[in-house]
Amino acid sequence: MTEFGVNFFPVVDPAVKSATDYYDETLRLIELAESLRFTQAQTVEHYFTAYGGYSPDPVTLLTAAAARTSRIRLATGAVVPAFTHPVKLAGKLAMLDHLSHGRLDVGFGRAFLPAEFDAFGIPMDESRARFAEGVEACRQLWTTEDLMWEGRFHRFGPVTLLPRPYQRPHPPIFIASATSADSCAAAGTAGHHLQVVPSVTTGEQLAAMLNAYRRAWDDAGHDPAARRIQIKFTCYLSRDTEDAHQQAEFYERNYIEHMAAAVAPLAGSRSADYPGYDKFLEKAKNYEFAKSLAGNKVLAGDPGGVTEQIRAVRAEFGTDLSFSLQFNPGGLSFARAATAMELFAAEVMPAFRETS
Amino acid sequence: MTEFGVNFFPVVDPAVKSATDYYDETLRLIELAESLRFTQAQTVEHYFTAYGGYSPDPVTLLTAAAARTSRIRLATGAVVPAFTHPVKLAGKLAMLDHLSHGRLDVGFGRAFLPAEFDAFGIPMDESRARFAEGVEACRQLWTTEDLMWEGRFHRFGPVTLLPRPYQRPHPPIFIASATSADSCAAAGTAGHHLQVVPSVTTGEQLAAMLNAYRRAWDDAGHDPAARRIQIKFTCYLSRDTEDAHQQAEFYERNYIEHMAAAVAPLAGSRSADYPGYDKFLEKAKNYEFAKSLAGNKVLAGDPGGVTEQIRAVRAEFGTDLSFSLQFNPGGLSFARAATAMELFAAEVMPAFRETS
Repeated sequence: MTEFGVNFFPVVDPAVKSATDYYDETLRLIELAESLRFTQAQTVEHYFTAYGGYSPDPVTLLTAAAARTSRIRLATGAVVPAFTHPVKLAGKLAMLDHLSHGRLDVGFGRAFLPAEFDAFGIPMDESRARFAEGVEACRQLWTTEDLMWEGRFHRFGPVTLLPRPYQRPHPPIFIASATSADSCAAAGTAGHHLQVVPSVTTGEQLAAMLNAYRRAWDDAGHDPAARRIQIKFTCYLSRDTEDAHQQAEFYERNYIEHMAAAVAPLAGSRSADYPGYDKFLEKAKNYEFAKSLAGNKVLAGDPGGVTEQIRAVRAEFGTDLSFSLQFNPGGLSFARAATAMELFAAEVMPAFRETS
Repeated sequence: MTEFGVNFFPVVDPAVKSATDYYDETLRLIELAESLRFTQAQTVEHYFTAYGGYSPDPVTLLTAAAARTSRIRLATGAVVPAFTHPVKLAGKLAMLDHLSHGRLDVGFGRAFLPAEFDAFGIPMDESRARFAEGVEACRQLWTTEDLMWEGRFHRFGPVTLLPRPYQRPHPPIFIASATSADSCAAAGTAGHHLQVVPSVTTGEQLAAMLNAYRRAWDDAGHDPAARRIQIKFTCYLSRDTEDAHQQAEFYERNYIEHMAAAVAPLAGSRSADYPGYDKFLEKAKNYEFAKSLAGNKVLAGDPGGVTEQIRAVRAEFGTDLSFSLQFNPGGLSFARAATAMELFAAEVMPAFRETS
């Protein structure tokens, strides 16, 4: 059975929607998602701007969601180890794992916005190394008592993290948003799960990444049935296809513009660790909605149309994918997001219930 | 009207009570506290050992509490700015401020356990300076858009923190557990509120600290009615005085022993910033329950006895104190803590309802 989750990436200008309303609506949408059999709710870590800035600490929002739900899994997508000491990060994630009675999935990400690295005083050139060390330090803090850690950026121990996590040996670890086949292969070898965002890669790149990941997972001898790959889309759903496409175009442009604005001010601080960085700004500038839709980078349409898109994605990238869907991009109204989720659960999900 | 809150400092050995049970019981006790008209729930930040280690991130537990309550205020007592970057700390506290619809009180503390400073790679000699910079950086992140911060430990900006806090200009700031009159005076001058723990000072010290604080607050021209001083006690309450005293002696010794164990392994790393540090270990070793009880360092007895103790504390230290009471020290059973809270609400609180 294909799993569908809900994703919350707040591209929300405070002038358009207050933080109080955004959080309240998100929590109500997560409760609704649970009742509609979505299996996971996920949120992101970003700072300072309308591009994600309402979510500087995903663990905090997910903890509120845990208190209001009982079955849906809760996922970071992602937390950024470069910005939080591993003792702090592993500790609060372990707390959430208990508070949710073992419903936590942890996606770790590298981050990519220069303004965020600047604020935390972290050179972007250290991004890859800090990510690798942070993920492994968290994993060992969860699994090892009397841990001695001697890394490049952190040294501590012997310490025994409290609380020990609820899920043993540790909450599922996802490597988030990798864009290179090498990074995906490394995740597979390590036995980590994967979160990918098709809108930031070409189809060929993504296929190569996923194949490298699956091959590395199998070559390392991990259980093939345990492998999890999440693919993230924004989803605009309406009984009226034209209405869905109009909404989609408006909010996708809003997303791209806010991303470009978050990136642009510090474009000078490009790093060798981010080779595609200049292309990224250019791509944002040349964004074409019709092309994005035709390439299945965004899901938009009536239930039949979106069902066909999901079939196409599965045909192209594999039937082992689970989907994490954003239904309230850019401050879309609660009512509209709730209606789309209900429509999805009623008329799209059933088409994928029997498939494996 | 004198305010009473509940305090959760987990001196809990994982072998005695699982983290899942500790959090679940704590959240149920906070719900009960709200229904009994306690006005605040507070928790602490500590790591690694049975001395507080179940609470590496107080914001996480308080966020779960916020989702399950609607009136009670939620307080850190304290968070430690030395261990978290101010952008991260101010951001997640602002999230909790929204998620609780403005019910957040923020206590900031310096921390004092060498093992914690070691794990975070922070020299204890920097403790005072990092505390001062961290509190002020959070305050300015909450109040100032396009903030430029040029501190000794952090430099960033211009940045505008998101979300802006719910409470304006910012959530109430408490300086936690200061033990010197100078620190208290500095808090008063800055217009910060105060959290004190009488068990770690002599009565004379505490009286001098509070007087210095009140004088500095008034001298700086702050509104006398806005000043808030919280005093923290563990409270053992039973209809049977002897039963209460036996429980109290058992759990107070448990507390002292775990504190000594948390401090002892690294007693060599004493710092000039912690002049009373060696005396502290000795005091723990020479602990006498009867003396502690007679000196009103701990509240224990039947409702009449505890009422008399609170009257004595108010007579000695002032009628402007609010009380933060720990009813479940050391993994005491949920039932016993709940019974004590109900008894307190029914037979102690009313004595202080009409007083000011």
